Order: sequence, then structure tokens, then C-alpha cells
Amino acid sequence: MSNGKKADSQTVYFRSADFPSGGFLPKNQVRIAPNDRGFMFADGLYEVVRSYGGRFFGFAEHLARLRHSLAEVGIDFPEIGELPGIAQELVRRNGLETVAAVTYIQLTRGLCERRYPFPTPPVVPTLYIEVNRLLSAAAEAEQGIAAITVPDIRWSRCDIKWLGLLPNVLARQRAVAQGANEAIFVRDGVVTEGTHTNVFGVKAGVVLTHPRDHHILAGITRAQVIQLCRALRLPVEERPILQAELAGLDELFLTSTTGEITPVVVLDSKPVGRGRPGSLTQQLQRAFRGLISSLSQGD
Amino acid sequence: MSNGKKADSQTVYFRSADFPSGGFLPKNQVRIAPNDRGFMFADGLYEVVRSYGGRFFGFAEHLARLRHSLAEVGIDFPEIGELPGIAQELVRRNGLETVAAVTYIQLTRGLCERRYPFPTPPVVPTLYIEVNRLLSAAAEAEQGIAAITVPDIRWSRCDIKWLGLLPNVLARQRAVAQGANEAIFVRDGVVTEGTHTNVFGVKAGVVLTHPRDHHILAGITRAQVIQLCRALRLPVEERPILQAELAGLDELFLTSTTGEITPVVVLDSKPVGRGRPGSLTQQLQRAFRGLISSLSQGD
Repeated sequence: MSNGKKADSQTVYFRSADFPSGGFLPKNQVRIAPNDRGFMFADGLYEVVRSYGGRFFGFAEHLARLRHSLAEVGIDFPEIGELPGIAQELVRRNGLETVAAVTYIQLTRGLCERRYPFPTPPVVPTLYIEVNRLLSAAAEAEQGIAAITVPDIRWSRCDIKWLGLLPNVLARQRAVAQGANEAIFVRDGVVTEGTHTNVFGVKAGVVLTHPRDHHILAGITRAQVIQLCRALRLPVEERPILQAELAGLDELFLTSTTGEITPVVVLDSKPVGRGRPGSLTQQLQRAFRGLISSLSQGD
Repeated sequence: MSNGKKADSQTVYFRSADFPSGGFLPKNQVRIAPNDRGFMFADGLYEVVRSYGGRFFGFAEHLARLRHSLAEVGIDFPEIGELPGIAQELVRRNGLETVAAVTYIQLTRGLCERRYPFPTPPVVPTLYIEVNRLLSAAAEAEQGIAAITVPDIRWSRCDIKWLGLLPNVLARQRAVAQGANEAIFVRDGVVTEGTHTNVFGVKAGVVLTHPRDHHILAGITRAQVIQLCRALRLPVEERPILQAELAGLDELFLTSTTGEITPVVVLDSKPVGRGRPGSLTQQLQRAFRGLISSLSQGD
């Protein structure tokens, strides 16, 4: 993603103990305090929501997931219902009403002296939101990408959309260094998910993906793709894909908010299936684009 | 820890892409940008070093550990040798030359647009340092504390002193909610470490602690205590303490930079040994205080 405007003229939303009323302001005027628990402890969460022509896709699902994350980490944020309105206003203020855009929402437990236990009484959570133009991933969607597998060294609560992304950063960097676009985590012999994607395999006409549990994020696009499979009467199984099964898959694809459905055509330097996007993957891509365009047209 | 001065008059050190020359400034003038990779990804590291009467304890060991962390996450920070001088100057500027103090050093990969892979070319790492008065933990050291055990849900690279501390925050909060002071992680039936401490057990005169590996931080105080055991001819074994062994331990204690050696006298609401600080623990505490006072007196 890149900015719709330059950073110094981009309008973002910010609220914190230092600025409790909150408001829209130029990005370069946002001051995160060093004692923000987001900066010192990664004590916070995030969500990424996309919009097409000013209409948001799956915002309710993103809010439901954020509610789950908030409850699991014990952050109280009753103002959660304000997020869609703020995001909409940011799209407008940044002139992104007619394009595809991504809204990044970050929330931390707030600002207090550096001590592990929660502040008592609770402080104002820090809220930061920016919207950027979504760069086209058409080439990746059409041609597919290369990925690598890496050991899943992350914590065991990957169902929480947590800011602690260093393991993801390191895995992705390893992929980039090897000329690939994404890294796919493997934990105890099982494919869990990518650094910012869910992973789907296709074997003998059956679509496979890791079940929802503590080891993967319950991706919004993941759920939409499972629904699409059912609508298209494609058999879909939420069951672990073993690392040992990877070489025998007919198709492999990734889902994410920013990349939608992306075929993986090379895995660990070997072709997946015939080394080009598979037919079920393409069928799902077409169906997904259909959903999006009906949204953009206001159906 | 609390501030030697109020936050608005506390002097800290800060350097970032926005302020590449770096310098000493009032804490409330530090502006972490929202796109700092420390804030958005927890893409950074930290160290905590103590000083007594203006003399630092184990700074070389802390720097060696920071070098390890930097290498493991691929952050280039050739200016690492400047840290002791900056810390010393912060102690002076904050009037902490005659007391016990803790220097908190945080380093992030720096400031760039939100994308997982490392920025190319690399950006200036963000460096933030503050020094606070070390509050006395004499009561805990003398009377001991209560602790609980919790599942170790953290990533598997706990040897890296990473900012991603939410699992530690949640565990510590759970301890506090149960009237205890610390939570001790158990992974696959083995005691690893506390949320900000290493764990030692004593059984039949033998001092036990988890071996150095990817599941624990190589604590500086931990290493000093092992050295003290050897100097005192106390048998010490670096081997896993099983969760199943906890109830049968004679003594249990924690080590950390800020707490030094802290006896655990209650674990999961049951007394440890006789429910008071053990004799080996106390012997080690005395020897450790001896080290500290020789340092303070300039030996």
C-alpha cells in the first residue's frame, strides 16, 4: 500500500491520553508518546479493512474480530462503534472515494508508566487510523506468486490480531531474500497460515484450509472464500494441511484483505501442481471479483 | 520503577529518522511517529541496565546480549558503543548519581511506510533511552513473594529481548488479579522463566535453572547468580525443572535486573518449602549484595 497523499498532507485519525478528544489531523502531527504501551510492549491490536469506491467490505466482520481480540487481551473500548464512521470520513478527507483503499486501525492499551500489569484505573486506549490507496495486486492475482515455508515460531494465540509482528516480519523478509513474496508457517508438521494471509490447498477437487483455532487468524477473506466454495458447491474441508502433503497439492492459494485471492505457483522453489494458477483458484477469484463488483455498484 | 523527576521535566535520549542527530530532551518532547516499526510491528528490542551510585552493573553483558538480539533480527546498529556514555549522561542529567537507577534502552528498526519486509535501504533505527530511580524491592527480597504458574504461550525465540511483551503483560496481570506478584511460564511440562525474571529452584542442596536456549532469556543476573553459586561451591545444574517437580522443591527464587534475587514463598497458593525464604536463597542474596556494595564503593 502507498499513501493516497504524501505523508505530510495525509489526514489520519488519532486519539490518546495526550489528546483524549481525538480528531482528524495531518499524519506528521501525530505524536505517539514513548510510554505508549503499544510502543513499549506491543500491548495492542489492529485491523485492516478494505473499501471499494468508498464502500467498505466486511466491516461488521472486522469489528466482530476486533471485539474478540479486545476481550481476549482485556482492553475496554466501548467506542468501537465509532470506527466505521471515522474510516468513512478518512476515505472522504483523503480523496479515496472512487478507488480501492485500505483502512488500518490500531488500538493500544494506552499511555502509562512502564509496568507490565494493566494500568489502574484504565487509561484512554490509543487509537490510530490511516487510510491508504490499495495498490493493484492484479499481476500477482493473475500470474501467481512464489512462497517459501518457514517454521512457525509465533506465540500460540494467533487468533488475536496482535501488533507483535516481528516473527511475521522476519519470515516475510526471508521470503523476499529468496525471491519469493510470502512465507507460509509450519507448526509441528502442519501448515498454519502465511505472514499476513490464510492458506488454502486444493487436492483432488477438495478445497482445504486450517480449521479456526488458536494457531491461525480467522481471516475475513478466508471466511468469505469458504462461503463462496459452498455457494459454488465446491467441497471444502477445514482440516490441517500437513507439510508432507504440500508437494502433492494440485493448487495452493492465499487469502487476505489486501491481496484477496492469490495463487501460489512456486513453493520452496518447486512448482505447485502445473506451476500456474489452478482452475479452482481461478473460479474462486472470478466469484470473489463478482462479489466485489456487486458491492461497488451498490447491490 | 518511578521517575526521578516528573515526566515533563525528565530528560531522556531520543534519535530517529525524524531527528537523526539525536539528543537529550524532555520526555514530553519525544515524538514517536505512528509509522515507527516499533509501534506498528513491535519490530525492535530493549535492554534494562541498573546502576548504583552512578556505576553501572554488567553493562558489557547487556551490550553483548543486545548484539545477539540485533544480529538475530537483522537490525544494524553500529552506534551500540555509544550507549554507556549516553546512559551515564542521563543518570547525571536526572540527578540519579547517588541512588540505584534503571536505564531502559529501546531500539526499533526505524520509521517507514507500513510494509513487513525490511526497509531498503535501511533507515535510521529509532533509539529511546530513559533512566528512572530504582524503587527498593527490599520487602520482597526479605519476605519473598507469591507467584503463579501459567502456560507459556510466547514465541519460541525468547532468547531475543523483544518488545513483543503482550503475553508477559497478560500473564503478569493474571498474577496480580490472583494477589500474586509474578507469573512463571510452563511450556510442555517444563518451567521456563517468569514474565521478567529467570527462575531457580533448590532441591536437596542443588541449585537448578533452565538451560540457556531459545525458550528463555539469558538473564544477566541469572549468569551472575550461577557464577556466585560456583564461587560459593554450591552445586548448580542448568537443567529443566519439570512442572511436576515444583511441589517438591525446597526453595524457589527469581532473578532479574530490577529485582535482583527474589524468593518465591508461595506458588499457586501453596507454600514453597517451609513457606519462607530458603537458606540457600538467602546465602545467594547476601553474596549478591556483597558484589553490589563492592561495585558502589568502586572496588
